[in-house]
Amino acid sequence: MRTQVGIVGAGPAGLLLAHLLHRAGIDSVILEARSRPYVEERIRAGLLEQGTVDILTETGVGDRLHREGLPHEGIELRFDGQGHRIALTDLTGKRVTIYGQQEVVKDLIAARLSYGGPLLFEVEDVSVHDLEGDYPSIRFRHEGRDQVLHCDVIAGCDGFHGVCRDAIPDGVLRAYERVYPFAWLGILAEAPPASHELIYARHERGFALATMRSTSLARHYIQCRPDEDIAEWPDDRIWAELHARMAGRDGVSPIKEGPILQKGVTAMRSYVVEPMRHGRLFLAGDAAHIVPPTGAKGMNLAVADIIVLARALEAFYRGKGMALLDAYSRTALRRIWKAQRFSWWMTSMLHRFDGDDPFEHKVQVAELDYVCGSEAGSLTLAENYVGLPMEA
Amino acid sequence: MRTQVGIVGAGPAGLLLAHLLHRAGIDSVILEARSRPYVEERIRAGLLEQGTVDILTETGVGDRLHREGLPHEGIELRFDGQGHRIALTDLTGKRVTIYGQQEVVKDLIAARLSYGGPLLFEVEDVSVHDLEGDYPSIRFRHEGRDQVLHCDVIAGCDGFHGVCRDAIPDGVLRAYERVYPFAWLGILAEAPPASHELIYARHERGFALATMRSTSLARHYIQCRPDEDIAEWPDDRIWAELHARMAGRDGVSPIKEGPILQKGVTAMRSYVVEPMRHGRLFLAGDAAHIVPPTGAKGMNLAVADIIVLARALEAFYRGKGMALLDAYSRTALRRIWKAQRFSWWMTSMLHRFDGDDPFEHKVQVAELDYVCGSEAGSLTLAENYVGLPMEA
Repeated sequence: MRTQVGIVGAGPAGLLLAHLLHRAGIDSVILEARSRPYVEERIRAGLLEQGTVDILTETGVGDRLHREGLPHEGIELRFDGQGHRIALTDLTGKRVTIYGQQEVVKDLIAARLSYGGPLLFEVEDVSVHDLEGDYPSIRFRHEGRDQVLHCDVIAGCDGFHGVCRDAIPDGVLRAYERVYPFAWLGILAEAPPASHELIYARHERGFALATMRSTSLARHYIQCRPDEDIAEWPDDRIWAELHARMAGRDGVSPIKEGPILQKGVTAMRSYVVEPMRHGRLFLAGDAAHIVPPTGAKGMNLAVADIIVLARALEAFYRGKGMALLDAYSRTALRRIWKAQRFSWWMTSMLHRFDGDDPFEHKVQVAELDYVCGSEAGSLTLAENYVGLPMEA
Repeated sequence: MRTQVGIVGAGPAGLLLAHLLHRAGIDSVILEARSRPYVEERIRAGLLEQGTVDILTETGVGDRLHREGLPHEGIELRFDGQGHRIALTDLTGKRVTIYGQQEVVKDLIAARLSYGGPLLFEVEDVSVHDLEGDYPSIRFRHEGRDQVLHCDVIAGCDGFHGVCRDAIPDGVLRAYERVYPFAWLGILAEAPPASHELIYARHERGFALATMRSTSLARHYIQCRPDEDIAEWPDDRIWAELHARMAGRDGVSPIKEGPILQKGVTAMRSYVVEPMRHGRLFLAGDAAHIVPPTGAKGMNLAVADIIVLARALEAFYRGKGMALLDAYSRTALRRIWKAQRFSWWMTSMLHRFDGDDPFEHKVQVAELDYVCGSEAGSLTLAENYVGLPMEA
């Protein structure tokens, strides 16, 4: 088997790359370890930056997103029992859109299959080879047969636990990591959202976030211990904690209760490897970096990586050489580190840290007070939240 | 002895308060433990916000400041060997002015003495009494005689190590503190400044700051250990370290050498007590709060406190009651916490922390890259550096 670009992973990164390459007349094959239903139902991020919406729209996979997505023009920061709106759109001219990652995945799979682009699910024993030469290959097992995919370039879009990053020899990559001393306990509930916009709350008891999947499905999170036992959180305790952290000075909570459909604990981590390339293997998305979810940057960063990588591959196949591919890691990392900084900042400003340092609490509130009270402060939050320019 | 406002301390806070009260027709007496030459030569901060310059100018003590001060319209942030100018004045319409705190003190003492306002130096055994009633008093010893100063209100402007804060009963105040794991080794040198504007440098070896007293006196700082032994820093080691931290990518350092006139180590601390009042005693300036010097906020915050306090005392003596005095602590603290946040942020972004966490280094550079590359980011630095509005 032979193709131009071998893509490992059918998440948003791998699927979008195949889609952009197809539009540029470049062949690719996607290999995915999981089944189609699994990746189409896998619940992850749910907030798209304007730039993410734009690329999906421009490349013809934004129809359902525009029908079903919920555009938001602001978010609320809540601290000391008071809400303060950050008017994202008034400040930046851009919006964000609530639309689940799994929905983007469904749309991209449908597009891929509509033009017969190779997309293999449930492949086993994937391994990448000959990365340092001009003829890399991917070995895998599919429908009981061992196969080799020969290609010019491999895109490692197989997530944080994928095989591509681990295939790079020791000493090539440098990892940067921060593990936070807390996690998020998340619920999905059959209830109206707390508000028509997201509410990020800083509270003495810990952070809370009220978001949504749709106008009838609420998604809420509360800061918890990294080793939190979900069994210790019956529904009534979760609602009581959400009410406590979200309540205004009048004691009124905006949270509306309803049957809880899902519960889970999400770890919080910042992680980056540099460079995002070894020879003919290019890493993109979670395979190269993880952000804590506070800034809603995970999937958006993957999309930004892919835009840079697709452009570089297009130049390569148009005979313009390796220059853009050589620059890929550096170009992508500059934006990634800005998003890492933003995610770290939002996380640091809104969460309760261990040690219970009263100075830190005061600085957090002063920072929120400044961010909400200064137009420049509000704009720094807003322009990062809606997404810095792709070239930033 | 009797007066309306008894002021403990003849630093910028106490002197400015007496000056503003005098102009409002309110009597005060200033008691200072040190000698006049000592307070006039005591070297501290040296950068005035626009609002500090404005209040000194408007109240007739700005003549020499305007003749001798050096107005600055920008600062440079230097990281990864490259300088980035933050155009303070283009961004905010305001300037900062290099003018030593001791010069402000000289100007205010001269003004005070010109109209015969009571100002006693070298007072001993100062203690404050009856704070909770309407008739507080200050006991002290001056020129060999024990005296009592009866007054309506006491202003505790006697600095971090003064007696006023300590006179407040246990349990009344809450202290918030952060001690940083580093200090500044500072030099005063007979040499031209490194640049016509200040240079703040983040370097793998640690923070450095190149500033000035005048066009022929350079003032430089390098981050060091809190317990740094100055004896281990002969002049050539100091210059070598300054060159290393300030050098551009071409290896060229902007630092100009010259005879070193002074050397010293400055501790770094953030500290606030709340409330800044107990009964008829009002704390202002360093008596109530300390900032690390990175944001150049120390004296400017003292001036801001005094503007709020003088206005409240004026209202009180014009028969408008205690409302503004009751609001003093809350009003002053809101701005103080914003300046604390800014000073903590500048310090965190520019210094090397123990533990040598590579993620932290990357986030620092990403933050500097964002601040310098985004107009909103630049403006958040600039508007805090030149001074938030007095009412902010």
